[in-house]
Amino acid sequence: MTTTQVTLVQIDNYGPWTVTPEPRREMDLQSLQSRLFADIAEFLGHRDGYAFFTRFDNMIAVTNGVDGDAHATLQESIGNRYPVTVSLGTAVGERPIDALEAANGRLQTEGSAQDEGRTEVLAGEYLTETNPGDVQIAHFDVVNVTGKYTDRLNEFDTFIDIERAYASLMRHLRREHGALSFFVGGDNVIAVCPDMPESAFADAVDHVVADVDVELQVGVGRGASAHEAGFAAKHALEDCRHAGTAVELFGAPAASD
Amino acid sequence: MTTTQVTLVQIDNYGPWTVTPEPRREMDLQSLQSRLFADIAEFLGHRDGYAFFTRFDNMIAVTNGVDGDAHATLQESIGNRYPVTVSLGTAVGERPIDALEAANGRLQTEGSAQDEGRTEVLAGEYLTETNPGDVQIAHFDVVNVTGKYTDRLNEFDTFIDIERAYASLMRHLRREHGALSFFVGGDNVIAVCPDMPESAFADAVDHVVADVDVELQVGVGRGASAHEAGFAAKHALEDCRHAGTAVELFGAPAASD
Amino acid sequence: MTTTQVTLVQIDNYGPWTVTPEPRREMDLQSLQSRLFADIAEFLGHRDGYAFFTRFDNMIAVTNGVDGDAHATLQESIGNRYPVTVSLGTAVGERPIDALEAANGRLQTEGSAQDEGRTEVLAGEYLTETNPGDVQIAHFDVVNVTGKYTDRLNEFDTFIDIERAYASLMRHLRREHGALSFFVGGDNVIAVCPDMPESAFADAVDHVVADVDVELQVGVGRGASAHEAGFAAKHALEDCRHAGTAVELFGAPAASD
Amino acid sequence: MTTTQVTLVQIDNYGPWTVTPEPRREMDLQSLQSRLFADIAEFLGHRDGYAFFTRFDNMIAVTNGVDGDAHATLQESIGNRYPVTVSLGTAVGERPIDALEAANGRLQTEGSAQDEGRTEVLAGEYLTETNPGDVQIAHFDVVNVTGKYTDRLNEFDTFIDIERAYASLMRHLRREHGALSFFVGGDNVIAVCPDMPESAFADAVDHVVADVDVELQVGVGRGASAHEAGFAAKHALEDCRHAGTAVELFGAPAASD
Repeated sequence: MTTTQVTLVQIDNYGPWTVTPEPRREMDLQSLQSRLFADIAEFLGHRDGYAFFTRFDNMIAVTNGVDGDAHATLQESIGNRYPVTVSLGTAVGERPIDALEAANGRLQTEGSAQDEGRTEVLAGEYLTETNPGDVQIAHFDVVNVTGKYTDRLNEFDTFIDIERAYASLMRHLRREHGALSFFVGGDNVIAVCPDMPESAFADAVDHVVADVDVELQVGVGRGASAHEAGFAAKHALEDCRHAGTAVELFGAPAASD
Repeated sequence: MTTTQVTLVQIDNYGPWTVTPEPRREMDLQSLQSRLFADIAEFLGHRDGYAFFTRFDNMIAVTNGVDGDAHATLQESIGNRYPVTVSLGTAVGERPIDALEAANGRLQTEGSAQDEGRTEVLAGEYLTETNPGDVQIAHFDVVNVTGKYTDRLNEFDTFIDIERAYASLMRHLRREHGALSFFVGGDNVIAVCPDMPESAFADAVDHVVADVDVELQVGVGRGASAHEAGFAAKHALEDCRHAGTAVELFGAPAASD
Repeated sequence: MTTTQVTLVQIDNYGPWTVTPEPRREMDLQSLQSRLFADIAEFLGHRDGYAFFTRFDNMIAVTNGVDGDAHATLQESIGNRYPVTVSLGTAVGERPIDALEAANGRLQTEGSAQDEGRTEVLAGEYLTETNPGDVQIAHFDVVNVTGKYTDRLNEFDTFIDIERAYASLMRHLRREHGALSFFVGGDNVIAVCPDMPESAFADAVDHVVADVDVELQVGVGRGASAHEAGFAAKHALEDCRHAGTAVELFGAPAASD
Repeated sequence: MTTTQVTLVQIDNYGPWTVTPEPRREMDLQSLQSRLFADIAEFLGHRDGYAFFTRFDNMIAVTNGVDGDAHATLQESIGNRYPVTVSLGTAVGERPIDALEAANGRLQTEGSAQDEGRTEVLAGEYLTETNPGDVQIAHFDVVNVTGKYTDRLNEFDTFIDIERAYASLMRHLRREHGALSFFVGGDNVIAVCPDMPESAFADAVDHVVADVDVELQVGVGRGASAHEAGFAAKHALEDCRHAGTAVELFGAPAASD
């Protein structure tokens, strides 16, 4: 059984800030957002967590093993170095979507994301221990993306196809399993999953090819943290690439169906 | 008539690098990618260009007014400060998609994106002058996103809806007009457009609501550069927010249909 | 008695890299160096350590409470995100200079800083526990620097005076006490000290005024980590500012002489 | 005759901000300062200017060829992405110190650096053209620093010697010539000079060896911008390294005396 600790990072009152006193230059906003994400990714990554940029003003992170003090440090450090502040809600659940829902609720009960008075909320429950099977990560990519897409199509049409595959996969895994899937660049999607049988991953691959005609492969890993599980998933995905299989579970090759 | 200069930024041989000699930590890659994008956004933004992160290993930029020397400086600076290098292909076209197609082709003819020997390509044609109507930008966002989504749903389900709206819009504008649309965070999509009548923007809004039931509004601007056009679009979008209209063209309010 | 853990961060073979195949643009090097330092300062700072930029190609850090695994993570992360790698030597001593000497020796015995084959050395001993009085930090600044210097002289002449005060102080504390003093911007110098009587700080202030005619004040703090000690020192320095005293020890005001 | 355009970058009201409402974590300040400097170095560097970190809260830049609009863009961009703002004063002079003095005066007449109401001053005169001999840069380093210092002494004692050499050189060149010298990391000092005969550089090297017993070598370059002059100086310094000479002027070897 998985136990996933999820943190929602929300920039406080960000929308109004971006247009006050008048709209700010878009590239300054882009630079600000992506550097803020980079700092969070590094901070959590160095503690074996994973952060995803999602909408940038709201970011979702898997934080098993990262305690309340570390969350407070992150929040304080951002407040010291950026023109904006962040609120952090954290919760634990068997299914990632349930953990997120609870984490999110902790912020929503404190007020609106655009409430000027609701800043730097730090609310959450944190796991006091980690166990080897707590987190399950599936790392998907597109079979032969360079040969089929990048070197042949223009980048935008490639991007449309990758986006379609991502959209199809994210909805399928959300609806069927309560998993949270994130596009992480290139042709890569990382899904934070609950317990799922091997066949469920093959089903997901089948679903996407049937839905939008993009062929995926997936490596699956398990660990005490997002990094441990994700690293195992990356190795399993390397196995797919070498063996030509569609699904690999870390430790034992899975039959694709 | 629009004249859009588009640059494709492609990290050289990036996929293999990320797994050599074994997979690199995902959060290091995320941090690397988003800081690289931030640097490019700042560099081009300070020259009134726009850059979009797209897939991060391939980024698309609108670079009217940015000459070949500046492109060379950007390429050299990245090579000096990052463990990866980039190739840059640039071209000009009336329709953004055609400019991108040509820019992209300049890199593809030099070799595969995963060809070890094809690094730091710098190939392009650059406009020698800029004119006030060269670039058209449409800035879309979701009507009342905080009230309807952020404060009510969990962040992932909000994200799914935003993604669906983006996917619907990007495909519609690509197919009908050869426009390039990019999600830029929050609930914002920026579309780089050719000449389009006012009704085409209203049609796009209608298309998305019919397709995925998400209500958008859009401000449209025109200028000699991406920044000029985009800034006018932001102001027009502010007009939508205040007037409750669905489409505003900079200078004159547009009737929504 | 103090127990200071010191880490030397050395960029591997940096000098040759900066001029190969020909000299790299100076501002790219400046940007690279200062971002690398910023990342290290954040990484260690979030673990209650202190890092100082020193010569940028060699940085000195106080790392009580930061274990060998964390040092390995830092080294790997830099290798993944920068075009250069770093070696890390760590040692523990009662006097900071002795800890540094030992940390430094661990790298020197592995080869020259410009030996191409000597990269990513990770050598050290790390404290397995921390105690409340392990680290002593003194935070100096110039009395009324804005009124006497910044608002009156040109910035370079101000800088010359600050530099002279720093040079005088760093040599005095090094020679007399084996302390390591670092300029940290503005008019601030942070000294990592062994056990020193209160009178020694007053003597240091007297030495500088006699030597170079710059009037300093100093707050002194003690803690289990650089941050704890340094934070107490900052508070003590605030007391100097308010009380007009030259030396304050955290907890009890010190008589200035 | 040289014509140097100098810009003073001053963080507005920074000292009070760092301790309000109570002292901020030192490593957050270090990270903030060095990233701000990195951004400025990149911005100006990409326009062939040079920026120096100096005291970090006050930075000095050589900005020949960078006009008022670019200065305004830099100021706006920092205001959008940092929790602090900057004021920029710019002036032109034959001797660098005179240009700085005038640039500095433009800010000082607007109010104190710690005046809450004096923010984002943008005051200056900017060259409308550049000429090949406008800027003269001398790039100094220590002869065989790795063999004599880095690989033999501990880093702090090496640093003390480098600092002493820098202090001696900066004062000599300031007093005798009105030049501005900056330590830029490692064993490197970059001096922004007025017209100086070849013998003056040899004298400077002699002065430092006599004063503090550190042996320097220097390459000198001239150009229309800081980058052009500095790049020529780097090449000349490479010539020193290969030829074993103490002074090289770009284009023609200089006799050392």
